[in-house]
Amino acid sequence: MSKGQLQWIIPDGYIPPTSSGQLESHESICVLNLSGEEVTVTVNAFFEDREPILGMTATVGGQRTHHIRTAHLNVEGKYIPKGVPYAMEVTGSAPIFVQYSRLDSTQAENALMSVMAFPVKE
Amino acid sequence: MSKGQLQWIIPDGYIPPTSSGQLESHESICVLNLSGEEVTVTVNAFFEDREPILGMTATVGGQRTHHIRTAHLNVEGKYIPKGVPYAMEVTGSAPIFVQYSRLDSTQAENALMSVMAFPVKE
Amino acid sequence: MSKGQLQWIIPDGYIPPTSSGQLESHESICVLNLSGEEVTVTVNAFFEDREPILGMTATVGGQRTHHIRTAHLNVEGKYIPKGVPYAMEVTGSAPIFVQYSRLDSTQAENALMSVMAFPVKE
Amino acid sequence: MSKGQLQWIIPDGYIPPTSSGQLESHESICVLNLSGEEVTVTVNAFFEDREPILGMTATVGGQRTHHIRTAHLNVEGKYIPKGVPYAMEVTGSAPIFVQYSRLDSTQAENALMSVMAFPVKE
Repeated sequence: MSKGQLQWIIPDGYIPPTSSGQLESHESICVLNLSGEEVTVTVNAFFEDREPILGMTATVGGQRTHHIRTAHLNVEGKYIPKGVPYAMEVTGSAPIFVQYSRLDSTQAENALMSVMAFPVKE
Repeated sequence: MSKGQLQWIIPDGYIPPTSSGQLESHESICVLNLSGEEVTVTVNAFFEDREPILGMTATVGGQRTHHIRTAHLNVEGKYIPKGVPYAMEVTGSAPIFVQYSRLDSTQAENALMSVMAFPVKE
Repeated sequence: MSKGQLQWIIPDGYIPPTSSGQLESHESICVLNLSGEEVTVTVNAFFEDREPILGMTATVGGQRTHHIRTAHLNVEGKYIPKGVPYAMEVTGSAPIFVQYSRLDSTQAENALMSVMAFPVKE
Repeated sequence: MSKGQLQWIIPDGYIPPTSSGQLESHESICVLNLSGEEVTVTVNAFFEDREPILGMTATVGGQRTHHIRTAHLNVEGKYIPKGVPYAMEVTGSAPIFVQYSRLDSTQAENALMSVMAFPVKE
């Protein structure tokens, strides 16, 4: 088995609804795949007051990274809504490493935050 | 037992006393509950120069997240004071995942910080 | 033994030399002591191009937090210099939890960063 | 073996292409070497759409820190390109501690983010 963990948790998800200045508000799920094979990443989104959106997917090539924009994820026409607090479970078809970053440019200057996702004990 | 940890620590708590611009200064304890049952979250707040506030609670539904505003937590009429450094111990009645984020808009533009809470070894 | 870890590492230390706006640039080592007894915290600072400053201390009461300003730490008249990259080793006389945060107000608006310190395996 | 881990992962790398205001946009890989001997740090960079850049190196003296600017790393004339998402694998010739921080001054005011790198299980 290659290096990394299969399952990662990001409790604080939020796509800022507005942007100003040069940079657009966004979140990225940054995945590193150190194996030689392509990995499928499955993202489940959990909300405060509605059913989860399960089974959104993206791919990461072998020996590649993919900084996945959460606003681009979708399944059966469903997208993560903007301006709504949510949380994510990120699962790889093989071991991966996951970091989460948000750029908020709601106000004129940008604000950044980043955390390593939390690996679920296996 | 479902996925997660029972007890989490956040040493750097601080509710900024002032806000400016479009967004209000606040902190959130972001909890994900992957189980199928509602979880009760108990928050204890520890201070530099006074007795702890113990036993503030919030709930998180099954397969739901709750981004708990620290300014809303209270017990027996006691709230976490603004503008005072403190620390938190966050305990779930069942396993949870916990991230802490702060938006500080004391000055005209917002600043963001976030950390995964630290899981206490069981 | 009470909850926590004895030794924590913070590789990215930096006290911004200048401030502007309402808030002063600073770093905090935020310590939570869940035990019933006072804990002594020892901070060692390591630099890129000079000898370490070893044995700066602070205390944290039982069931208390202390958000230690790095600019206040000193030993034998030596302080951590401003505007110089450094790293820290933080050791408790009993188990503690440690988070590191920096407020940089070099420019007109403040920027925030925070990480949980890294616990040394025991 | 001295304290620390041999291998660390940083999934979210990005060198902002532009700067404004007093501070230059940059990333730092902050390494602490608690041993008494110099350590060689090897950085591999992985991209979304091109082959990795492998084998960039820097050194950290014994009982010293080195806040390595990613823009200075290079091997055989190859540098990490600016404005391109990437990920890093950081390996020490002996155990080290690693934190990653980014200062983004694309807009007039700076934004900061920092994470502890993720230690690969050994």
